[in-house]
Parts: sequence; C-alpha cells; structure tokens
Amino acid sequence: MTVPGRVLVVGAGLVGTSVGLGLRPGGTDVLLADASPTVAAVAADLGAGRLPAGGVHLGSGSGTDDGTDLDGPPGPVREGDEPDLVVVAAPPDVTAGLVVRALRRYPRAVVTDVASTKEGVVRRVLAAAGEDAARYVGGHPMAGRERSGPMAARGDLFVGRPWVLTPVPGTSPEAVDLVRTTAGRLGAVVVELDPASHDEAVALVSHLPQVAASLVAARLVGAPGQAVGLAGQGLRDVTRIAASDPVLWAQILAGNAVPLARQLRLLREDLDRALAALEAVAAAGAPGLPGASDPAASGGPAGSPTGAPVGALARLVAEGNAGRATVPGKHGDAPAVWATVPVLVPDRPGALASLIGTIGEVGVNIEDLRIEHSPGRLTGVTEVAVLPAERDRLVRELRERGWSVPD
Amino acid sequence: MTVPGRVLVVGAGLVGTSVGLGLRPGGTDVLLADASPTVAAVAADLGAGRLPAGGVHLGSGSGTDDGTDLDGPPGPVREGDEPDLVVVAAPPDVTAGLVVRALRRYPRAVVTDVASTKEGVVRRVLAAAGEDAARYVGGHPMAGRERSGPMAARGDLFVGRPWVLTPVPGTSPEAVDLVRTTAGRLGAVVVELDPASHDEAVALVSHLPQVAASLVAARLVGAPGQAVGLAGQGLRDVTRIAASDPVLWAQILAGNAVPLARQLRLLREDLDRALAALEAVAAAGAPGLPGASDPAASGGPAGSPTGAPVGALARLVAEGNAGRATVPGKHGDAPAVWATVPVLVPDRPGALASLIGTIGEVGVNIEDLRIEHSPGRLTGVTEVAVLPAERDRLVRELRERGWSVPD
Repeated sequence: MTVPGRVLVVGAGLVGTSVGLGLRPGGTDVLLADASPTVAAVAADLGAGRLPAGGVHLGSGSGTDDGTDLDGPPGPVREGDEPDLVVVAAPPDVTAGLVVRALRRYPRAVVTDVASTKEGVVRRVLAAAGEDAARYVGGHPMAGRERSGPMAARGDLFVGRPWVLTPVPGTSPEAVDLVRTTAGRLGAVVVELDPASHDEAVALVSHLPQVAASLVAARLVGAPGQAVGLAGQGLRDVTRIAASDPVLWAQILAGNAVPLARQLRLLREDLDRALAALEAVAAAGAPGLPGASDPAASGGPAGSPTGAPVGALARLVAEGNAGRATVPGKHGDAPAVWATVPVLVPDRPGALASLIGTIGEVGVNIEDLRIEHSPGRLTGVTEVAVLPAERDRLVRELRERGWSVPD
Repeated sequence: MTVPGRVLVVGAGLVGTSVGLGLRPGGTDVLLADASPTVAAVAADLGAGRLPAGGVHLGSGSGTDDGTDLDGPPGPVREGDEPDLVVVAAPPDVTAGLVVRALRRYPRAVVTDVASTKEGVVRRVLAAAGEDAARYVGGHPMAGRERSGPMAARGDLFVGRPWVLTPVPGTSPEAVDLVRTTAGRLGAVVVELDPASHDEAVALVSHLPQVAASLVAARLVGAPGQAVGLAGQGLRDVTRIAASDPVLWAQILAGNAVPLARQLRLLREDLDRALAALEAVAAAGAPGLPGASDPAASGGPAGSPTGAPVGALARLVAEGNAGRATVPGKHGDAPAVWATVPVLVPDRPGALASLIGTIGEVGVNIEDLRIEHSPGRLTGVTEVAVLPAERDRLVRELRERGWSVPD
C-alpha cells in the first residue's frame, strides 16, 4: 500500500482544504495552491498545508488565473517540492486543463481530481496527455456542504462518504492504488466505476434532486407569508439543498448535461401525466372531487374518487414509495427500517440532553433522531430511531424514568 | 371560552384517534365511530374514547360504508350521547357528506372536519346544509406522519402544529370559538384563513413538495444499486415524504386539483427552461462543458461556462436560494439561521448521549441536530445547531471536554 509523502492540492476551496486538513495529521506534507493568493493563505492559516517556497514551481505570475505555474517546462524540480500526488480541486470548468498541465509539470506524480462529473474530464485528459494519462485517476468524493470555501472545510469531511474513482483500461494500477490509499486515509469509502456510469449515477442521485429542490423552492418566491407559515417538515426537507451555491451548481449541472437532461425528461413525462390527471379531475367538477356535483351525496362508495385520473396520481405516489425504498439508510445497506420512539421534550437547555443521556444509560444506540419543528410552541416531539428489537425496552425504560412516550 | 364536554369523532384513523387521545386526559367524553368496526375498536382500546352504546345513534346498520347511523331522522337523542362537537376525520372524498349528515343529526352540535383541502368541502356543505351550515367550521390540522391508521396516532400529534380554521361570513362565532378552543387544547396553533387561500397555501407548501418528492423517488425505481449506493443526505431529504400513502395522497392531490395544477404548471415552465439550457450546453459540445472541444485548453477564462444556458441554470438555483430563505425555521418566525457545530461522534450506544449530555451541562440549547448518515462506516459527524451567539462558547467548552470539533 503506497502512501503519498507529499501532496500538492491545487484549489484551496472546501474540498481541497479539507483534503489538506485531513492528511496533515498523518504526517503528509501538503502544498497548497489557488488562483486566489488570499484563499491559499487562509487555507494554510487553517492548518491545511504550506504555501510553496519562493514561487519556484507554483508562482502566480504565469498569466493564467489559477495561481499555479504549471505551464513551465518540465525539468528538474527543486528538492523537497516534488509532489507524489497532485489533487486538482478546482472548479469543474478548469479541472481538465489543470490535470493535463500537472501531468506534464510533474512527470513522476500521480494526478487526480475531484470534479463532480467524470466522463468529460477523463476524455479531455486522455486526448491531451498522451501516455502521461496513465498517471491520471479520475475521482469524485461524494461529500459536500451547503457552504463553500476554505472556512467551511473540515478534516473529517470525507469520513464515511463514498469516494468514486474512475480508472480506465490504460490507467496505471499503482496510480489507482495511491489515490485509493489517500482517499482511505481521509476516511472515505472508495468505489470504482467507469466514468459514464458515474455520471449517470450522480445525475440520478445528486443532480436530479438538486434541480427538484430548486424548482420547488423557486415557487416560494413572492408567496404570501401566511402560506409559507404553514410549512412543515416536508417542505423543509424537500428544499434544504436548494440553499446551495448557484454558480458552482450551474457548473456542475452543465457539466453533466446529457445524463441530467435525460433524467429530467423522464421526470417531466411523469409530471405531465400528473398534470393531465389533475386537469381531468378539475374538469370533471371543481374543486376536483368526483361527486362534487352532488353536494349532499351520501359519502358512500359513489362519491369515491376511483376514476382513471385519481388512479394515475396514486400510481405516481406508489412509484415514489418503491423508489424511496431503494435509498440506503445510515449504514449503507438496503432499506433501513428503524423503529421510532416519540418522546415529548420541552424546548429548553438540557431537556434533550437529559433525554439522550437517559437513552445512553439504558444502553440503546440512537440510529437517528428527528426534532419536530413546531412553529410558535416551546415543546416538541423528538422521534428517536432505534433498532426494532430495542424499541419496546426503550419505551418501557423511558416511561419508568418519567418521560412522556405516547402510545 | 367554550370547552366541549362531549366530542364525537367520526373516522378513527391517525387524525381522529389522535384527537381522542389528546382530548381525553382533559376530561372530555370522546365517542368514536368508524366505517370499520375493527378500526373503531382498536382506537377505543388505545384509549382514544368509547364506542357508542347500543348503536342507538351510531350503529353500523345504515347501509352506508362509514359505520355511522347519521342518516336517521333528527330527534330526541338519548341522554348522554349528544355531542357538543362532531369532528369528521374521514377520508377527504366522504367528508362533506358526513359533515352535512352530522349537522342534521345533531341539531345543537358544532361540526368541524380535518380534510386537507377546504374550498370544495365548504362549498358543498353550504349548498346542502342551509342554515345548519352556520354550525360548521372547516378545519385542517397541519400534522401528519408517513404512517397512517389508529396505531400511528399520538395524543401530542398536534402540539405546536398549525391548525387552520376556515370560517365563512355566515359561520357562527360561537362555533368558531368552540373549535378554536378544542384545537388549542390539543396544543395546536390556530390560524384563520378563507377556504380558497388555505387551498392555495397547501398546494404550495404541502402538495407541490409531495409531488416533487414522488417524481424524484419514482426515477429511482430500477436504478442500478451502485447508483443509489452513492446517495447522500440530499437525496434522502428530498425523497423522505415520497414514502406517503398512495391512496390517501391521490385523494388529497385530486381534492386540490385546480391550485395544485397551477403550481405544477409554473414549476414545469422552470423545468423546461432548465432542460432547454442543458440541451443547449450538450449541443455546444458533449459532455457539456463549453470549451470541451479544446481538450488542452488552458483552463483559464476562455474555458469558463459563462454562456446564457449556464446563466439560466444559475438563475434557477439562485431563485431556489431565495425561496428556501422564506421557509420558517423551528419557532415559526422568519428564516431561522442557526450556527452549526460539527462534532465527530463514534456510532455506539452512549456516544451521542454523552455528547448531548455535555452540551446540556454547558447550558446551551440544541435547536436542531443532524446525524450524518455514513455508508459503511461506524463513525459519523453530528451537526449541532445552536443560536449563533452561543456557537463559540460551545465549541470551546466541547474541546475542553475532549470532543473532536473540526475548525
């Protein structure tokens, strides 16, 4: 297992700085470069690495806007600054160019990147780098935050997260091994995929939900306050990732245009079916319930919405059930179904602490925890998710200790 | 302030049973009726109320499928079973009919319902009930769970949640007062809206996110396991409510067809713009990045995606930012921005307990808490949300106590 002794991080944003913060405690020498000298200095100040000495190899005078001097001729590099691994953690639109230049500049280094789409970057590198491309391993750590920049970085950003590597037939196994080891030292779970499969996968599980969240959130602009005042946890969950950075995400979405457009067209077909069903219901009798034309209807079977339009809506929701069931739970295995224990918790310092302290005493592991967000009230329900086999014991123990656990 | 001494709950599902469970501890006499005698018996067994004696007024022999004998002629009712308030908590498609019959059957009772759309129900009741309609108050408790049925009921289901009342000009103020008091005793925050405004609001904040979640989740059906294996918290959040009951939700969506279709058409316009932008990017050069036709491009400004299509994507995400910022936080006031403190927590019994116990000792209130779900690893990051003013102190105190709090 090869471990890189020196790593050059090109791009000291959230991901690059987090790589530095995560590798340095293990003794890796981390060099930092960024198009913005200020950003690089902030990352260094945070402890993510050191700035290259004297600008010999990584000065900012190259005339490019990436703050690196990767365009210089390859040749003898100063002892002590030759990296074993270059991690290009720059914006997606400049990634391929930087990878190619890093391969040329450091003829013995392995080069990887962190761009969130891979087929385009890999193709461009293969086309431009010739046999140097054997030292390039495409990568994508599936970790991120709503915030960006070095100040948001964390050395544990990648802990437990998938880190996809996309080697191709010509990639050197030693290069793959080095990147795999590095990702592993950052706590990531390495997954290998071919570049096209990676891009299809992230279009589905990352880019599609981002667009959907943005589409729903965009509808809230200008909505009456009384409307959003009724929002519950559902709307909050669906729109959470709509807070993401617009310029970065425009690049990410554009960089995966073909697979993402394919997913969005399929989604639009389902949307059009739902819309047609709603319009058919509306046409059959405002405000939409079959039987609405008979206001004093008995409420019996004759009034039930059993027509084809309502069936189409039920099918959509049922398909959503099936899709949702495929989403892995906390430990990465198939649908995790926890048992849920609701507990009434006053909203004051120490109350939740006391609850969870009690659960710890009882010896039950908390798999997940959801605090109900309650407008205007200072008491809420906390739902504690535990292994189903532990549910009954936890309920009993909590009640014995005076907690309010509804049936 | 009027308090109902006796409440008849028609429909012993999640909401009806929760009403009974919530009212009985305060001394209210709760009668239960349901189309299914088994469901009614389960609700009674759970402690939500009692079954009407002898089927005199609420037998199951009426030939309707709702299990109530509301069709009988009004007249002297047996002493002890005349309700002050009838809560119709039946499926939306039978609600209006049951309200009308309850108004006739109990000429002194106030009648309310819990259907999730209001304009249609109110219109049908007004058209059919004549002057009796003055005793009807439309209602909608904004509380629910992914699960349904009496077994999922909780007496605190409504605590801190909005409960919308939709009185109209002819509604008796005393009737509104009685329902308001009842909702208040269940812990709900009462909001008054006219029926149409209510329906517009829930189309936006409840039904639109439900459809979006179902649409995204439906795309996961049949996806390769390696793709959903890459799913992160974003996909989990966006699709959580896609686990909802298909038949119930088809009724809810159909019942609000006109406002919901309007919202979905607006969303589709934005979706079409996003699709057009992606297709333009793809046409300009697969795999989508402007400049892709020049693989060895410098990576400088010339390669940046600055064209109109990428701008359109950035605008969509930016609009989503603005919309997301309007969503109220935990306490119902304008955008709650908590400060977040990340803490590394081993995934074993007692570890989270110990963390939260420590936070309690420090005297900081936990506003929210998010456990990062990490596939394949037994250590995760817990993000603790606190008031911004308390952040620095919490970080310091946690570190002093040996917790790993990344910068």
